[in-house]
Amino acid sequence: MAVDPVTLTRDLVRCPTVTPEEGGALVLLEALLAGAGFETARADRNGVPNLFARWGQKNATRTFGFNGHTDVVPVGDIADWSVDPFGAEIRDGILYGRGATDMKSGVAAFAAAAVDFVTETPPDGAVILAITGDEEGPGRDGTRALLDWMDENGERMDVCLVGEPTCPETLGDMIKIGRRGSMSAWITVTGKQGHSAYPHRARNPLPAMARLMDRLAGQELDQGTAHFDPSTLAVVSIETGNSATNVIPASCRGIVNIRFNDSHSGASLSDWLRKEAAEVAGEFGVEIEMEIKISGESFLTPPGDLSALVSRAVQTETNRVPELSTTGGTSDARFVKDHCPVVEFGLVGKTMHQVDECVPVDEIIRLKAIYGRILRDYFG
Amino acid sequence: MAVDPVTLTRDLVRCPTVTPEEGGALVLLEALLAGAGFETARADRNGVPNLFARWGQKNATRTFGFNGHTDVVPVGDIADWSVDPFGAEIRDGILYGRGATDMKSGVAAFAAAAVDFVTETPPDGAVILAITGDEEGPGRDGTRALLDWMDENGERMDVCLVGEPTCPETLGDMIKIGRRGSMSAWITVTGKQGHSAYPHRARNPLPAMARLMDRLAGQELDQGTAHFDPSTLAVVSIETGNSATNVIPASCRGIVNIRFNDSHSGASLSDWLRKEAAEVAGEFGVEIEMEIKISGESFLTPPGDLSALVSRAVQTETNRVPELSTTGGTSDARFVKDHCPVVEFGLVGKTMHQVDECVPVDEIIRLKAIYGRILRDYFG
Repeated sequence: MAVDPVTLTRDLVRCPTVTPEEGGALVLLEALLAGAGFETARADRNGVPNLFARWGQKNATRTFGFNGHTDVVPVGDIADWSVDPFGAEIRDGILYGRGATDMKSGVAAFAAAAVDFVTETPPDGAVILAITGDEEGPGRDGTRALLDWMDENGERMDVCLVGEPTCPETLGDMIKIGRRGSMSAWITVTGKQGHSAYPHRARNPLPAMARLMDRLAGQELDQGTAHFDPSTLAVVSIETGNSATNVIPASCRGIVNIRFNDSHSGASLSDWLRKEAAEVAGEFGVEIEMEIKISGESFLTPPGDLSALVSRAVQTETNRVPELSTTGGTSDARFVKDHCPVVEFGLVGKTMHQVDECVPVDEIIRLKAIYGRILRDYFG
Repeated sequence: MAVDPVTLTRDLVRCPTVTPEEGGALVLLEALLAGAGFETARADRNGVPNLFARWGQKNATRTFGFNGHTDVVPVGDIADWSVDPFGAEIRDGILYGRGATDMKSGVAAFAAAAVDFVTETPPDGAVILAITGDEEGPGRDGTRALLDWMDENGERMDVCLVGEPTCPETLGDMIKIGRRGSMSAWITVTGKQGHSAYPHRARNPLPAMARLMDRLAGQELDQGTAHFDPSTLAVVSIETGNSATNVIPASCRGIVNIRFNDSHSGASLSDWLRKEAAEVAGEFGVEIEMEIKISGESFLTPPGDLSALVSRAVQTETNRVPELSTTGGTSDARFVKDHCPVVEFGLVGKTMHQVDECVPVDEIIRLKAIYGRILRDYFG
């Protein structure tokens, strides 16, 4: 009997899995998959729960992998919700709850499709699910731990699909084949405090900050590459903490955030930022310190067999030609990409992380159909 | 019998005259002056106490005026003082107390010199003292009210000496013949909030602010004029109130402070600021609003009879050639200058507005001698 992905989504939503709580979600999935003949194992690390499951032989000629997560972001002020965030209530064909789109429904749709597929038409190969309980948190012991565990245990995937919400407007309109990198720099300019009436006795850090930010914001980083939009730099903050008109402040702070494509790396951009800062510091006679954090490098699985496979399935089931995109934030695909080709496809992400997060029941069913077709086509 | 300026200073310091409290100081002065034959009147306005006193005829051929104040700035944390701020204690020849330099000693030295002068060698002319109780506060109803009252009552001065502390290091080293103007502009740049990953959907106000501040700070306003240092612009603040690296803020605020000489006016600089802001706003597609406050225009009494008179007296009594300067903040001379030639000469200002404000007793005595010589030379 086919697995109902809506019931499975509701069961998962009812598990209280605010990151990194397991909340019963991985236990539930493990029971379902083990019952369908999957070999399963928990690959927990430092208290973070992770579930590995494989149907078929470890050294199969073809192994299709799926990566997803059952943890969710906090609900915020529960008074703002019009439903119980963990109630999985369905109203007018819409299922409500934290994780309804991001991404318990994606996990449920693939698990349901996979169980049906291996039960009805056992493939010549293997299907792996690597499900973490920490994608929304620091992510140190989530998908990374699963991949480490797989390496240590001789487990591998030939390709991997990540089930994050990828569609901006309508189910089927976008597949992600990579992501831009992201980094931030916290900049402190230090001069010498003084009185506004005697600026020559002070060294004002603000003109240096203004010049540096003007130079950084005015620089065209690139014009985009084959599969990426142009890289962008956003000045997100300049703070002084001074309201006295007669005081030249001793220091000020600023923050820039860079989203970068594959013509840069975190290291090359760090070098550029430090070089610009050093030039301005020298010009103005101030100290400029910079703390840089690289959240993720850019990555890309160039259009090829995997994206074509997923595109065809999406097109067949939705009558839409999905755009192959590298826009948006980041995801655990940034870890998977070091192991095998990876693409991401899932639901419409509009309500993710929001109050009254929800998904049309119908789209969970269609997502299961798309995932099922991908599996059949891959092994067909 | 000669009036002791040290005793008079101590009596004034003991009056609690934190601006705009009268504290008994003007009552004390009025009694002293009236006793020496001065006609006196209170020219209070809106609760601010002001004292007018004239020796000699209203329509005398020559009238020498003196302007000063008896109010003081607050003491701050009294625990920081090593003496009672209103105790007027003398230790090792130093008189301590709030107002000891700024400027109860200056008022006392002139009042003492004037009483002695009109008593011992009655001049062919008039001597006026215009003493306010609000120079340290808003200043709307202080010296301005006195000058208005004088106009209404047919009182006039041919020249005026302001007794503010003017000497940077040593008694006699500086006379002020004018002051730079001062103004501030509060600048708000408004764009459109957005996500750092999608800067093209936002309009970031910060690059516009950086460009505007870079342009303003980089502009040489002038190279100085005959009697003034170059005008200066200090960027004193840029504030955003954002610490989230993934958010492009909707708006940011900045403050600039300008100290300007006689090659500009508050109006000409306001025009320049607004023109620069309009250009940057157009370039970046943001709104820039500006609130400008002109604290005072620049003013100058060009070197001439009055400054020469004061210089000679200072030189005779101190053996120093005073510099004729226009540096520093502002003073009530900015109001007096619309009525008659005005110069400022007084004590060393190092401890003014500070904890343990103090003055060497000896310098009060020498200041009285200088003021006495100025009076004798003026009428001689």
